[in-house]
Amino acid sequence: MKSARLKTLALASPAILLFGCGAKEQTRPNIVFFLVDDYGWPESSVPYGDEVYPRNLEFHTPNMERLARKGVMMTNAYACPVSTPTRTAIMSGMNAVHSHITNWVSMAKDEPADAVGGLNGNGVFQDLATDVFMRPDWNINGLCPDIPESEGINDVAVATPLVRLLSDAGYYTIHVGKAHWASAGVPGASPYNMGFAVNVAGNNAGHPKSYLGEENYGNTKEGWTMAAVQNMAEYYGTETFLTEALTREALKTLEYPVSHHQPFYLYMAHYATHTPIQKDSRFYDSYADMGLDDGQMKFSSMVEGVDKSLGDLMDYLEEKGIADNTIIIFMADNGGNADNPAKGGVPHTSCAPLREGKGSCYQGGIRVPMMVYWPGKTAPGTRVNTPTMPEDLFPTILQMGGVKDWKTVQKVDGKSLVDLFVKGSQLAGRESFASQKEANAFVVPESVSGIDPSRELVFHYPHQWKVEYRPEVDFLSTIIKGDWKLVYVMMNTVPGMHVLDGVPFELYNIKEDIGETKNLASEYPEKVSELAKALGERLRTWDAPMPVLRSTGEKVAWPDEVDL
Amino acid sequence: MKSARLKTLALASPAILLFGCGAKEQTRPNIVFFLVDDYGWPESSVPYGDEVYPRNLEFHTPNMERLARKGVMMTNAYACPVSTPTRTAIMSGMNAVHSHITNWVSMAKDEPADAVGGLNGNGVFQDLATDVFMRPDWNINGLCPDIPESEGINDVAVATPLVRLLSDAGYYTIHVGKAHWASAGVPGASPYNMGFAVNVAGNNAGHPKSYLGEENYGNTKEGWTMAAVQNMAEYYGTETFLTEALTREALKTLEYPVSHHQPFYLYMAHYATHTPIQKDSRFYDSYADMGLDDGQMKFSSMVEGVDKSLGDLMDYLEEKGIADNTIIIFMADNGGNADNPAKGGVPHTSCAPLREGKGSCYQGGIRVPMMVYWPGKTAPGTRVNTPTMPEDLFPTILQMGGVKDWKTVQKVDGKSLVDLFVKGSQLAGRESFASQKEANAFVVPESVSGIDPSRELVFHYPHQWKVEYRPEVDFLSTIIKGDWKLVYVMMNTVPGMHVLDGVPFELYNIKEDIGETKNLASEYPEKVSELAKALGERLRTWDAPMPVLRSTGEKVAWPDEVDL
Repeated sequence: MKSARLKTLALASPAILLFGCGAKEQTRPNIVFFLVDDYGWPESSVPYGDEVYPRNLEFHTPNMERLARKGVMMTNAYACPVSTPTRTAIMSGMNAVHSHITNWVSMAKDEPADAVGGLNGNGVFQDLATDVFMRPDWNINGLCPDIPESEGINDVAVATPLVRLLSDAGYYTIHVGKAHWASAGVPGASPYNMGFAVNVAGNNAGHPKSYLGEENYGNTKEGWTMAAVQNMAEYYGTETFLTEALTREALKTLEYPVSHHQPFYLYMAHYATHTPIQKDSRFYDSYADMGLDDGQMKFSSMVEGVDKSLGDLMDYLEEKGIADNTIIIFMADNGGNADNPAKGGVPHTSCAPLREGKGSCYQGGIRVPMMVYWPGKTAPGTRVNTPTMPEDLFPTILQMGGVKDWKTVQKVDGKSLVDLFVKGSQLAGRESFASQKEANAFVVPESVSGIDPSRELVFHYPHQWKVEYRPEVDFLSTIIKGDWKLVYVMMNTVPGMHVLDGVPFELYNIKEDIGETKNLASEYPEKVSELAKALGERLRTWDAPMPVLRSTGEKVAWPDEVDL
Repeated sequence: MKSARLKTLALASPAILLFGCGAKEQTRPNIVFFLVDDYGWPESSVPYGDEVYPRNLEFHTPNMERLARKGVMMTNAYACPVSTPTRTAIMSGMNAVHSHITNWVSMAKDEPADAVGGLNGNGVFQDLATDVFMRPDWNINGLCPDIPESEGINDVAVATPLVRLLSDAGYYTIHVGKAHWASAGVPGASPYNMGFAVNVAGNNAGHPKSYLGEENYGNTKEGWTMAAVQNMAEYYGTETFLTEALTREALKTLEYPVSHHQPFYLYMAHYATHTPIQKDSRFYDSYADMGLDDGQMKFSSMVEGVDKSLGDLMDYLEEKGIADNTIIIFMADNGGNADNPAKGGVPHTSCAPLREGKGSCYQGGIRVPMMVYWPGKTAPGTRVNTPTMPEDLFPTILQMGGVKDWKTVQKVDGKSLVDLFVKGSQLAGRESFASQKEANAFVVPESVSGIDPSRELVFHYPHQWKVEYRPEVDFLSTIIKGDWKLVYVMMNTVPGMHVLDGVPFELYNIKEDIGETKNLASEYPEKVSELAKALGERLRTWDAPMPVLRSTGEKVAWPDEVDL
């Protein structure tokens, strides 16, 4: 159909095509990738779970509900435990272990984010883990596009970026918000080098110094860091919360492609809801009578700010008459931060019913919200449980955009989710479910989606995040296969170390035990062996960064080499 | 011809036009506005004067020479004495006196740039002028586009911006470098609000904190100010001079319109050669054997960096095969800074043979380099002496771009220079001149250019720039009419004050006396009266900001009300 129409146009007026006119491109859908930062699976009023959890009740996100009614909720979507690995996986199509970008990148070049000894939260010098392990050898400077400027740049993964392929195919590509693919001084720090035509506020920073216009988003002499948000001078000294400012900038940058009828790819990557947790005054007071503490109220207000942004974008698309040709992908870059006192509440519970949060290979760190709305393609108000990985978005988005025969310097690990989103949601839409729980468990057969619902999913965090060692976050790996999940606790391979359950492997049935409360490793030793072998093979194949035992200078053993 | 072709296309395939396709736009030329900051009339190896002056010999600008060979040199172009008034005049088409933006805007809102008492260059408290005058009431927050967000913004001039009109007409509009139309917290601080589709590094800042990648362009905790240059993280810690970094960004942002065959307007507004004067290491050493001091060598290296940028852009246009359809306008935003010890040399002589420099209403402050190359239209290697004003660029650029029937909320003061550039240069090209001096004096008749070569040109600086009062800069107005120029020395209207020649009016014949060395006021009292009347009428008509005498609370008299 598309090629037929093109042919007609070409016959009618070949000169126009010579002029590079948009006729060909107009058949492509617009794509909005709406990425939220540090945003947990239960942190909205639209529940991704089998039921409405208490945490869902702390939020008011009518526009996420609106999007859920229009599109398909991916109730079992995964991301990496921290930001940069997810973002670079989307941009490169490579699994984070494969790219060796397993941690977030520092703002400064050549400075690994891995914690080293220092003062812990109580002001006491501590170096427990770094005393045990030395940091792994990973790509501390992040992702680098395959451009001449990448020559000689050290400690980066080089890849043909997704956005360059979209741009080459005719998309007008807009970056708004947080980039964080690479450190300063590295080409990957600039969205322009990734193929974006426009960049608002994206660079090497992984969080904003401040969300407050009153504080110039951190652009003040006092306490300045590279996290001061750029491109926002018009809002300095005003009461404009950063989320709102970024949304307005996004609408401005859409003006060109919309008025010129050019297909666009808008990467709307909010800094929210990353720390610092600050009050979005437009919404804070409305959480006053809900029994929340100040931190919880602040966080809920930030979430509602993001929700309004989503709604404003949807309104804009409708007003411009292009909503019907615009795909919206909504996702978080990692789990919610469950160890941040500023968020209030009970520590380590903010992703409940999931265990732990950001940084962790437990479900709270990696299971994330995701929705996809492709007008006329995805079935409205549906749920699909098949797991997805961030690197899948790379081929998915290219297929959505009709980009074919693309070539990359890297091997792409992700698989297109188009059939999962489209045929899968349509299949779900034809089912009638007795309960949300039943709907929620809907898994699309591989024969329909092309995605094996039991494919191996690997997450790997061979790092120490904070100065204070946290067993439930640091030096963990995991593999998920269907309902089964193995967690590799690397610290417990060290003689004399007994953290968590004291064993190197924990086994969970995450269907039956969503909160990973019952370690079944001793009950199912064969399952442990099977998954340890699979995880070991994956890590070995990708030559995964592994912590090095300080006492021996040896890397931590691959999981299938550990004596059980 | 153009409309005829359009009609044919529309008949052949109306669907295409509905798609907003580029066919219509492809008939428009691309436009590069290459604006250099604080860059004086004799500060290049291509001489704008009747002869090669000693100052010209301190520079190596082969690409400016190249542009001069291709296009027309406007040897008598004018700008305002300081940056913001010129930039806002270009953007609004309003004379700076009319818009009441007669000084540069501070980075911070509601903080007039006018000097107040403080420590002078020698560390002595001084407030001579502010003791005499209070600052005038001017639009201290700069220019504001006519968008809803302009409501309630104080001390701004509201205007329909040039770039919005270009954008509305189909131009892809790119901002790279220094904006400086408005203070932080004001919509005009953002190029997006002015109609740009892309912004690299432009905001409220009027100078860069640093040109050095090694210093992160000022993005360091130590000594941070809002002048730290934004959008440049990929170059932090590298040896990339800011001029080079901005050029590379410009080439990246051109990728979209060039590959999509969309007409573009690139506003390439270099921060160079504004202070801080820093060594561009690529070129510094080549000035070692020229008898220059360190400051002069640094400055010459910065100028050559700008020259390379111009050349890189010209090379790019040629490589892409679009040079023949791209107009280049080269200009400086005000005269060279003649009172900056960091530039080296003898103070107050850097614009020689012109008197004084930036800030001053003497010729060094307002007579600036300008070249225009419109392939196939401007005659190559020509010179035109007819004076031009910055506000003229507003209707000129619209006419160049084929934008018709534009409407503005402001009254536009500028006149289109298209016939001057095109017919004027062609006329010059047909003449044969015996000398550069003769060529240089070529004035295009009004009947050809539509521009009266003797029209009144008004410049007005009712401000005190630095803490130390400088009579040759502060509180001056001027009117130029043909060869005659009247300078109104407002300080000398105050009883007991006797600065400069001690009289309120100085009269120069700037054709015979390019350096304004001979005040002819006492010889030609009728000419003084005539020009004082004309200047008074202009200032009165525009309700010009005037200094207020502290002792009486009265404004300084209009020039035609001064007792002679």
